[in-house]
Amino acid sequence: HLLDFTEWSVDELMALLDTAEVMAQVLTRTIKKVPALQGFTVASLFFEDSTRTRLSFERAARAQSADVLTFSAGGSSLKKGESMRDTLRTIDQLQVDLYVVRHSSAGAPHQISRWTDAAVVNAGDGRHAHPTQALLDAYTFRAARREATGASLPGAEAFAGQRLAIVGDIGHSRVARSNIELFTALGAEVVLCGPPTLVPPELRSRHGVSVTTRLDEAVEGAAAVMALRMQKERMVTGLLPSITEYVARYQLTERVMRQAGPGAVVMHPGPMNRDVEIASPLADGP
Amino acid sequence: HLLDFTEWSVDELMALLDTAEVMAQVLTRTIKKVPALQGFTVASLFFEDSTRTRLSFERAARAQSADVLTFSAGGSSLKKGESMRDTLRTIDQLQVDLYVVRHSSAGAPHQISRWTDAAVVNAGDGRHAHPTQALLDAYTFRAARREATGASLPGAEAFAGQRLAIVGDIGHSRVARSNIELFTALGAEVVLCGPPTLVPPELRSRHGVSVTTRLDEAVEGAAAVMALRMQKERMVTGLLPSITEYVARYQLTERVMRQAGPGAVVMHPGPMNRDVEIASPLADGP
Amino acid sequence: HLLDFTEWSVDELMALLDTAEVMAQVLTRTIKKVPALQGFTVASLFFEDSTRTRLSFERAARAQSADVLTFSAGGSSLKKGESMRDTLRTIDQLQVDLYVVRHSSAGAPHQISRWTDAAVVNAGDGRHAHPTQALLDAYTFRAARREATGASLPGAEAFAGQRLAIVGDIGHSRVARSNIELFTALGAEVVLCGPPTLVPPELRSRHGVSVTTRLDEAVEGAAAVMALRMQKERMVTGLLPSITEYVARYQLTERVMRQAGPGAVVMHPGPMNRDVEIASPLADGP
Repeated sequence: HLLDFTEWSVDELMALLDTAEVMAQVLTRTIKKVPALQGFTVASLFFEDSTRTRLSFERAARAQSADVLTFSAGGSSLKKGESMRDTLRTIDQLQVDLYVVRHSSAGAPHQISRWTDAAVVNAGDGRHAHPTQALLDAYTFRAARREATGASLPGAEAFAGQRLAIVGDIGHSRVARSNIELFTALGAEVVLCGPPTLVPPELRSRHGVSVTTRLDEAVEGAAAVMALRMQKERMVTGLLPSITEYVARYQLTERVMRQAGPGAVVMHPGPMNRDVEIASPLADGP
Repeated sequence: HLLDFTEWSVDELMALLDTAEVMAQVLTRTIKKVPALQGFTVASLFFEDSTRTRLSFERAARAQSADVLTFSAGGSSLKKGESMRDTLRTIDQLQVDLYVVRHSSAGAPHQISRWTDAAVVNAGDGRHAHPTQALLDAYTFRAARREATGASLPGAEAFAGQRLAIVGDIGHSRVARSNIELFTALGAEVVLCGPPTLVPPELRSRHGVSVTTRLDEAVEGAAAVMALRMQKERMVTGLLPSITEYVARYQLTERVMRQAGPGAVVMHPGPMNRDVEIASPLADGP
Repeated sequence: HLLDFTEWSVDELMALLDTAEVMAQVLTRTIKKVPALQGFTVASLFFEDSTRTRLSFERAARAQSADVLTFSAGGSSLKKGESMRDTLRTIDQLQVDLYVVRHSSAGAPHQISRWTDAAVVNAGDGRHAHPTQALLDAYTFRAARREATGASLPGAEAFAGQRLAIVGDIGHSRVARSNIELFTALGAEVVLCGPPTLVPPELRSRHGVSVTTRLDEAVEGAAAVMALRMQKERMVTGLLPSITEYVARYQLTERVMRQAGPGAVVMHPGPMNRDVEIASPLADGP
């Protein structure tokens, strides 16, 4: 299973990044495919819609020659009041080898992993975790460090002592949580930056994590800066004063990025609110 | 075509069950796939939503290496007032080899079989028939009889003289109709049990079928007992007095099942209304 | 790219029709498939729903052994306000080889072709173009001319000096525009026929195009007559007096077709409004 990073060692995590690198090479060939999962079935169980995430998993499955079954909660018996467990019991009879699960409730993929013999990959559960997004971010981070230093940086060297700044609505973000977990496990430091109402206290005390409300302080010397999507609903619920004030204090811009370390990269898990958490020229820049 | 069982002989039906057994073995291999339908195209035409049924057919098609096209009525020209026949005319130009048809109107798959050269499998039409569900039930029934008796039970021996009890809303159930047709054809007896308003008179006079309103009488000595989903709408329309009364008289429980024959199995076509037509401990039991 | 026919030569267009003929042969074999696109990925990007068009492209992709990714705008980040360009940026990372694009805005496929290294096929954009529908029509036209004349008609001979009549709501039809472009490029004449409010002035002056409001004049000697779907909304907006009047003057019937040339074919891009723009006996006739 890949539910979160709790039971993964640094060596295992690095092996995932190295395998991703091999697969990225495969995708540059004329025939963008390997037979690794020929005869296996991958089922995407999306209890919460996410077209792009689902497509990326299905693309990955097909690049390894797996068959793909797409389950979305919309037209299903869940609407008739069937429990998730009973739904899974039925689908599980199709002899699925791997489930890719997206759910609005934290812990749903864990639950499913207890009910099936198949492997389970968490594609995002509530505010809890989004481990494959964090792996993509670590993959991007390592590639950027290699380019910036010209060194091969084997193992976790690309991460040791480097700093990742995450800016915005940390509290509601499973992407932030998974990145904190992964980057600190690999030896990096993570600086969280955002309005105090959006940075939950329990994250402040984690090893390798620091918190600031000042954007320039967060970005200073960082190897990567990640902007998170700012949900407009947060304003309504009183967690944020106004968009104008948020933009003034926390928007990522080319000017702000000048304070980052040499070769620093900008990251955003998407979809972007252009000119809210990130300025358009920065989003479209190099 | 597999529309209902009208034109199927006992030998042909047993051949379907034997083939299913071979395919079930295939699904336990590492490579869960055979090339039987390589280069064939299976199109699922679901005029009525049913995620699990559709997935099970698509899984079966892929296990035999067929290509799958998924048509659902939602986004189609049917919404623009196009007739089912004109829609099929267009889709039929794609050279589909097999259609899997689900429709809310009885007879729709028959109609489609007259309009195309492709094979048609009925995946449920109105209250008329759901033949593949009945085949699954017969498959399960035979496996249970083999386990209970330790005998190989070739041909239709597993069914001869055995009793299947079907409990609940018989009248609105295509699953019940197809099971009655299939099990009596294979030499079994079927006992129907439910409130008199939900057991239609025309089923009472069929060869091999008996009717009772007493659950203990229906279950007595049965080799299998099937609970049907109780639609809550039935209460509203006055066909049923109340849920409480239905539960008291017709709910399948562990206690009720003690009166069934040795090695009897409980079946339910799903999705279950737990603690309405079936008690949770029974649903989750051995 | 196949966006419209602007940059296509007659030889290239005829090569498309000849290739289609080979593929039509493939679809009559037992194994209806060639390995031409093995390892390639085709993504259908349908910003506007169209089940039949999408299925026909996916069928074509699978007939050449390509993998297919289905993107529909419904459940996507576009609903969260993401721009089409940002959506494409993300999807493009999946290393798609070919996009099939349907969009309600003219020019959208052109835009997308500038943002990606993949090939783009236009599956209909606003009122602008629907080139693959026109290619199907030309393919049908050539087959009919061969049958009518008994000659092989290589190259563009089937089209030279022949007449195609297009009847109905020309102004709102991307199918009409692409057929005009394609048939005149191949040397045919196109006669447009419909209420003056529905035949835009800019089409009248094109080389090879003539206009009439009299149906008998349009059909006289034509090798093919195409009826276009009449949207009922046109009545509401005052572009048309009434359905009754439209039917009386512009409906295609068996009687009207008697004035067409020998072996003339009737075409309709579908879905049909039976007994509005086309009489049912004609639609169902030979």
